[in-house]
Amino acid sequence: MRFFSDNAAPVCPQVLAALAEVNTLDTAYDGDRWSKQLDGAFSDLFESPVRALWVPTGTAANSLALAAMCPPHGGVVCHKEAHINVDECGAPEFYTHGAKLLTVDGPGAKLTPEAVADLLGGIRNDVHQVQPHCISITNATEYGLVYSPGEVAAIGDLAKARGLGLHMDGARFANAVAHLGCAPADVTWRAGVDALSFGFVKNGGMSSEALVFFKPELADATLYRRKRAGLLFSKGRYSAAQLLAMLEGDLWLGNARAANAGARLLGDAAGPRLVHPVEANEVFLRVSAEEAAALRALGFDFYDWGVGEARLVVSWDQAEDAIRPLADAIAGL
Amino acid sequence: MRFFSDNAAPVCPQVLAALAEVNTLDTAYDGDRWSKQLDGAFSDLFESPVRALWVPTGTAANSLALAAMCPPHGGVVCHKEAHINVDECGAPEFYTHGAKLLTVDGPGAKLTPEAVADLLGGIRNDVHQVQPHCISITNATEYGLVYSPGEVAAIGDLAKARGLGLHMDGARFANAVAHLGCAPADVTWRAGVDALSFGFVKNGGMSSEALVFFKPELADATLYRRKRAGLLFSKGRYSAAQLLAMLEGDLWLGNARAANAGARLLGDAAGPRLVHPVEANEVFLRVSAEEAAALRALGFDFYDWGVGEARLVVSWDQAEDAIRPLADAIAGL
Amino acid sequence: MRFFSDNAAPVCPQVLAALAEVNTLDTAYDGDRWSKQLDGAFSDLFESPVRALWVPTGTAANSLALAAMCPPHGGVVCHKEAHINVDECGAPEFYTHGAKLLTVDGPGAKLTPEAVADLLGGIRNDVHQVQPHCISITNATEYGLVYSPGEVAAIGDLAKARGLGLHMDGARFANAVAHLGCAPADVTWRAGVDALSFGFVKNGGMSSEALVFFKPELADATLYRRKRAGLLFSKGRYSAAQLLAMLEGDLWLGNARAANAGARLLGDAAGPRLVHPVEANEVFLRVSAEEAAALRALGFDFYDWGVGEARLVVSWDQAEDAIRPLADAIAGL
Amino acid sequence: MRFFSDNAAPVCPQVLAALAEVNTLDTAYDGDRWSKQLDGAFSDLFESPVRALWVPTGTAANSLALAAMCPPHGGVVCHKEAHINVDECGAPEFYTHGAKLLTVDGPGAKLTPEAVADLLGGIRNDVHQVQPHCISITNATEYGLVYSPGEVAAIGDLAKARGLGLHMDGARFANAVAHLGCAPADVTWRAGVDALSFGFVKNGGMSSEALVFFKPELADATLYRRKRAGLLFSKGRYSAAQLLAMLEGDLWLGNARAANAGARLLGDAAGPRLVHPVEANEVFLRVSAEEAAALRALGFDFYDWGVGEARLVVSWDQAEDAIRPLADAIAGL
Repeated sequence: MRFFSDNAAPVCPQVLAALAEVNTLDTAYDGDRWSKQLDGAFSDLFESPVRALWVPTGTAANSLALAAMCPPHGGVVCHKEAHINVDECGAPEFYTHGAKLLTVDGPGAKLTPEAVADLLGGIRNDVHQVQPHCISITNATEYGLVYSPGEVAAIGDLAKARGLGLHMDGARFANAVAHLGCAPADVTWRAGVDALSFGFVKNGGMSSEALVFFKPELADATLYRRKRAGLLFSKGRYSAAQLLAMLEGDLWLGNARAANAGARLLGDAAGPRLVHPVEANEVFLRVSAEEAAALRALGFDFYDWGVGEARLVVSWDQAEDAIRPLADAIAGL
Repeated sequence: MRFFSDNAAPVCPQVLAALAEVNTLDTAYDGDRWSKQLDGAFSDLFESPVRALWVPTGTAANSLALAAMCPPHGGVVCHKEAHINVDECGAPEFYTHGAKLLTVDGPGAKLTPEAVADLLGGIRNDVHQVQPHCISITNATEYGLVYSPGEVAAIGDLAKARGLGLHMDGARFANAVAHLGCAPADVTWRAGVDALSFGFVKNGGMSSEALVFFKPELADATLYRRKRAGLLFSKGRYSAAQLLAMLEGDLWLGNARAANAGARLLGDAAGPRLVHPVEANEVFLRVSAEEAAALRALGFDFYDWGVGEARLVVSWDQAEDAIRPLADAIAGL
Repeated sequence: MRFFSDNAAPVCPQVLAALAEVNTLDTAYDGDRWSKQLDGAFSDLFESPVRALWVPTGTAANSLALAAMCPPHGGVVCHKEAHINVDECGAPEFYTHGAKLLTVDGPGAKLTPEAVADLLGGIRNDVHQVQPHCISITNATEYGLVYSPGEVAAIGDLAKARGLGLHMDGARFANAVAHLGCAPADVTWRAGVDALSFGFVKNGGMSSEALVFFKPELADATLYRRKRAGLLFSKGRYSAAQLLAMLEGDLWLGNARAANAGARLLGDAAGPRLVHPVEANEVFLRVSAEEAAALRALGFDFYDWGVGEARLVVSWDQAEDAIRPLADAIAGL
Repeated sequence: MRFFSDNAAPVCPQVLAALAEVNTLDTAYDGDRWSKQLDGAFSDLFESPVRALWVPTGTAANSLALAAMCPPHGGVVCHKEAHINVDECGAPEFYTHGAKLLTVDGPGAKLTPEAVADLLGGIRNDVHQVQPHCISITNATEYGLVYSPGEVAAIGDLAKARGLGLHMDGARFANAVAHLGCAPADVTWRAGVDALSFGFVKNGGMSSEALVFFKPELADATLYRRKRAGLLFSKGRYSAAQLLAMLEGDLWLGNARAANAGARLLGDAAGPRLVHPVEANEVFLRVSAEEAAALRALGFDFYDWGVGEARLVVSWDQAEDAIRPLADAIAGL
């Protein structure tokens, strides 16, 4: 059984069904009736007027968001282990035309206001150094840790005080909200977030993420950038439909809760082996090479994470009884 | 009934079915078993070893192809009415990092070797002028005209003689091949084409085009550029499956033939009103404002094309009896 | 004697002397006391508060100006024979990160409001087409024609009405002002110009042009772009000194008048052979291949300009008695 | 007396004199007789056929060199305190169109093969991570440390083994060679360096550095990039003349020796206060705030370097007797 990543899981039946439902002639690009519902649907969810665009990947969503907030000669503050820094092949640099990622270290790929302030304090305010224009945080982080509304707000306050934008890479935003049990607004715009890459693909979608602007004016130029990047699908209704299906009946939240629950099961079994607390759907545990081999011999697949650690990711579709055997195997190591 | 564009037509049932068929866990990105079939499937179709990548839009395919052949300081020769020049919001400039489109005029958006040679002859070979690195042609053209193998080869010979790459924007490649009745190879690599944007979306696909490199080595850096542009879907199997479904049983050719036949029906009805011969699935005809209004009053929708002309595009799913009423209406003007 | 171009003429003695005068320790980059005088000196000249930056070439000045007014996804309206379009190796595309030059035709490389309005009218206001963000005109034009204040204002009014910026490439701005006899302000900001590339190198300078912003806020980001392009010299005082020396006692105007007078001498001799009226320091005349050869046999060097035309450019240092022999030779053809 | 930086020192009399000597009409750009001597003059100096281009700043030289070796989707390995990473406002990112600087830490801003190998070992060879294409080292480093031929060769060997290019930022290359007493070739191409930014401005020049390619073919596209960046001066002879004057009679070496000697004088006085050994013309010493104030009260100006350190830079024109008072003051702290 595969615990490599949630990014290869199957697509939710509701999402596939939605594709069939929109399979009729309509206006091209984002002029169709489903694409036109996005602003409203996400405004409802976030209790605030937002602009929401479909984009096919999280990398594209992140990059468009950063390009909306940072000029080519500017800098983006992020964690050195952030996905945008290490796993997007320089996409942010491509979309921003060469802006620089200004990286901060810290446990669990989590930024703290102190670490950010430290970095900012070391940048001379002259034309020789790249000046910061925005901050990007990942919620849940690359290690499955979740920023609380208060933690986001602390960074949001710092951003505002320094005149910086704030972006949230929410590839696993659903898992974060499921963990927090708060309103989506609480951990985003109410805490100072200007733009959110709201991920659905890891959570049961097929090829559609939402780029949500809490500062609606940021969307204007983004519409051109989306087209210019070859991301404006002519049959956009199939993208919009995926998002609407995920919002319908809070499917996104249900899926995330299921994945989180599965991860908790593994986390409970791992106990002292845990490298990080399990808050979302990822589990990092300490295992020797022999132990890892033993788990694999039982049919469980996962990534080694550096030396002596393993990463297990639970997907929306992995039911408790499918996960239990791995939990037992971990407990039995 | 809508004759605006083939880009908003519904998706073929076979394509939708293919999505359901691959809806199982597999490796992420393009490591799945369907994505891995693409090189082989397209090599078979083109009777030559090619590399074939799924990309979500024609704009992305075109831009990646051009970036593979032209450095940032170079130029791309194309028709001034080419889609890459007027309808992609500067995507080629984005992907090539500012290469310049060097435009040529001529009827029907069709390049001739003479017109290209003329342009090339006017470029001084010094560092002050942007030097050409490749030529891009559209087949079928933006006006539905089809380059024959001989016509492509004439441009291909010129390209080779000048050391230029040759790209074909094949948003309606299927319609061109359907018209020509030749082997796909004849009008591409055998005629000197290095890279083809092979369109499927207008022809019944949902969100997947094929970028085909006849010089396989051009694909290497393109894999990085595709990722860097946020185009590497994590669930790539749903993209690959669309292409495989279109190739299966030559569905792509059948769909294109159907659309072409519908356009011929309209073209025959239009007779002397035709601005261009009808070779693919587009029909341009001369109509007065009153005549256009009369057609619209009958329920037919289409674009005005400049003053005194109308563009009608037939889609893969418009059956003859759905088109006949418009043909009759045109004949009766 | 060489009439190829004013861009290879020697440097004015006053400019060389100024280099020696500043040859003392001072602050690096543009923090020295001479660089700090530029804003004031140019504000005086233009009777308005401006920001003035030294940059080493006209290409750099033009490109920085355009980057200040046009986003990467935008367009710059200019003449198809404009230097920025045909002789800068794509520098505007480099600095703007791929903005598109939207070109207009017309005699003498001169834009008219009608031609610009025509172009603008043909651009659909949607995300598929590159939207114009500024207009660039060259004064004097690449054919030595001069825009009057009224002509500039007509374009300036159009720019303002459409929300576009207006840039003037003034590689030969001095020659234009010398011809017009107006205040520099009349043909720039009073006529709607937002940024001027004020050329000095062709007019007796060595390696320093002025980029003048009439909208001072445009300078802010430009300071970063100048550094980022490797254009911020550490010993900036030698650049500033060149500009100050050219302004001192209106040396720039005197030099331009001398060059214009020389060109007029040639123009008078050319009479009906003139392709364009001689307004600045360039003379375009019709000559057969035999006539061109005859002039060259007499020791005069110049560029052929297409077929049957020659371009003669007079430099600031070519005195009347040095030019008279060519004038006589032309008259005697 | 100022010990801020060598980048604001006056220009050598020989360089100024050279400007006057070339102040005659010649061909524009780099077609003049002085520019044409550069390849030969630098080939002689380096005992190997090289291509040498004048460029106005070290930032431009570095960025052009990196752009010649790294594609937009690639990475450049460098020290985290390298000038290209922290003091060029993102110029490498601009010129390379968004390549990523992959940084390594270590004392004295010096790379070691081990540290580089470590970084390289951590990069997955897949399209999600930016792949390294070249290494850039600074000699002398930003802390005035000098790489020996053997140290460079160790990195050069690693570069070759991994298929990476090797660039040397030689803003203070002259000081490094003066320290080493070796042939310039020994510490460059014989040690695996492909491209050198050979600095002259800090060493008595005005506005001209040499970009030297030991792999001559790297120069071809660079000529276009230089023009496209607005760096191709029309009166290039004044740039070439500066370099030729610096090479004449090994003026560059004499100037560097003088500056190094001055720094040694300060270094000897500083003794145990030294943070780094003094190898070139920079001195880093530990001083308390009170001590720094005491030195400043005596009329000496310099930068604080973090907390508790000061940076002193000696310029080519600061004679021993001008430096002695500072040495005495330091010794007397």
